Amino acid sequence: MLIPKPYLLFLGDITDPLAEKTARGIQVWRPDYCLGQLRLPGCTVSLGLDDFSVEAAWAAGAKTLVLGVANAGGFLPQHWIDTIRSAICTGMNVVSGLHEKLSSMPELAKLAKQRGVTLFDIRHIRPNLRVGNGKQRSGKRILTVGTDCSVGKMYASLALEEDMRKRGMDVNFRATGQTGILIAGEGIAIDAIVADFISGAVEALSPANNINHWDIIEGQGSLFHPSYAGVSMGLLHGAQPQWLVMCHEMNRLHMRHLPHQPMVKLDVCVDANLRAAAVTCRNVKLAGFAINTSNVSNSKARNYCHLLRKRFGVPATDPLRFGIGEITTLLQKQT
Amino acid sequence: MLIPKPYLLFLGDITDPLAEKTARGIQVWRPDYCLGQLRLPGCTVSLGLDDFSVEAAWAAGAKTLVLGVANAGGFLPQHWIDTIRSAICTGMNVVSGLHEKLSSMPELAKLAKQRGVTLFDIRHIRPNLRVGNGKQRSGKRILTVGTDCSVGKMYASLALEEDMRKRGMDVNFRATGQTGILIAGEGIAIDAIVADFISGAVEALSPANNINHWDIIEGQGSLFHPSYAGVSMGLLHGAQPQWLVMCHEMNRLHMRHLPHQPMVKLDVCVDANLRAAAVTCRNVKLAGFAINTSNVSNSKARNYCHLLRKRFGVPATDPLRFGIGEITTLLQKQT
Repeated sequence: MLIPKPYLLFLGDITDPLAEKTARGIQVWRPDYCLGQLRLPGCTVSLGLDDFSVEAAWAAGAKTLVLGVANAGGFLPQHWIDTIRSAICTGMNVVSGLHEKLSSMPELAKLAKQRGVTLFDIRHIRPNLRVGNGKQRSGKRILTVGTDCSVGKMYASLALEEDMRKRGMDVNFRATGQTGILIAGEGIAIDAIVADFISGAVEALSPANNINHWDIIEGQGSLFHPSYAGVSMGLLHGAQPQWLVMCHEMNRLHMRHLPHQPMVKLDVCVDANLRAAAVTCRNVKLAGFAINTSNVSNSKARNYCHLLRKRFGVPATDPLRFGIGEITTLLQKQT
Repeated sequence: MLIPKPYLLFLGDITDPLAEKTARGIQVWRPDYCLGQLRLPGCTVSLGLDDFSVEAAWAAGAKTLVLGVANAGGFLPQHWIDTIRSAICTGMNVVSGLHEKLSSMPELAKLAKQRGVTLFDIRHIRPNLRVGNGKQRSGKRILTVGTDCSVGKMYASLALEEDMRKRGMDVNFRATGQTGILIAGEGIAIDAIVADFISGAVEALSPANNINHWDIIEGQGSLFHPSYAGVSMGLLHGAQPQWLVMCHEMNRLHMRHLPHQPMVKLDVCVDANLRAAAVTCRNVKLAGFAINTSNVSNSKARNYCHLLRKRFGVPATDPLRFGIGEITTLLQKQT
């Protein structure tokens, strides 16, 4: 799967800025993929891109309509279907991250077939998978892991990729979640895979490569999150990373959505991740910390990172606030 | 799901005794579920049960035809379909653990609907699941974990259930694999669940219960098996067990099917399982070891168990050779 670019980002008639998280992620990290946005009447949100109709976007070269908005329940509102239908008719592919599959709507599926375009239901991509085997493979791999969900693993991964690329390193971001997939243009939504194939899917996602090539694999969940630790564990084994970047949000009190579940301690979390990763990569090391410090002042953020640096002997930074350069520098020294 | 009993065990025309593993498991652990066997011409294997035709079994009270044999590739041989068709026509349900689904064969699905019987594709059961939450729930739970796949977790679980029941304890075996499901008559094939729902599925499988009720949850895989550790991790969190029974095969040299992957050390494996289990049950303890000693002499097996007992301070036994009573006794003391 490789989603054709450039994208026309569909915002529907949403009014909640949080709902555009996916579209915003694509725009921030891959501005050159984004031809423009399409908004229906009533939409109060904007990415600040040029507005296009389907026809105008097609004329300007758009290849794919991206449903880049979250929706309560993941269902496709009936009144969005007209736009999807016209996109297909003009010859555009359509990508959806919604639970409800475009390809299981007979009318859209038939239309897409007639026009020779593809409907990408990225939550439901099920490539031909085999179970993982943990065999050693060449190439360098970094996995972002976390104390919790939604602590900035995707952000840290993309920041690292950007910085490494700027320094002329040979690097790929490997997406495991739907926003990441739209940013990379390919990937596997790892939480939607059948459980037996988690590590195998990640092995397929980050195959053997040149010894100087870096894969940065987007982590998911946390070994300490009771809902998703299975996914995180399979990811860790399948990624076979030589390096982990630990992501964490300062001052988070409990595991996401679970007030009864205390936040894991950072040293315990680092230790557990290194131990588990060692099952498929004996010499795995911690490359540093990517800390989301958005809840505190600049000076508190600096102090906290300084403290982590001293305590663990590795770089610690908020990639959004301070950049991720110190982690890149450490990795660069290893080549 | 609760599969109606008694079963007519279908052996097809197999000639490989290993292929009858599932049927044999049902017969060993639930002899009272097994009305008889049905063999086609050419079948050289027998469970030692009475042979029945479909009609004779139905007349004798059989409720469900069980395809209790493995088949290369998990496909349904064309020449088995006649038997399945007649079972449905007489009014019997049919259970299959094959990859190929009975319910997606239009002719069989239609026939089953007409006759009002159920086709159970137990590898594909997808109950309505939610993600796990790790909330503390009442009742006592034991999970069998392992150094590897196929070390006897199901056997240990069933031996424990049998022994506890004999002693008048209130206990249920909770099945997570297909043979276990046929033995219990219900359960969830946990490795076939979408990754996001592993722990949630196990929470649903072993719900809150009386404080004196025991659930024995069948473990799968190993935290140290690069193919399946994600499943094992989600199982561990979802089970929220107060007790772990560590299963291991003496003298196994490497992880199953992976000659490059060294066998984990027993103390490392115990430690990792207790740490991970503590995420959802802070006071989790090791209840003992269930050792498969089939490769060594009786005296070597006794010596090894003795050594483990001394080293870890908990019971250690081969349930098949020496029974599982010492683990039950330890658990009984806790009530």
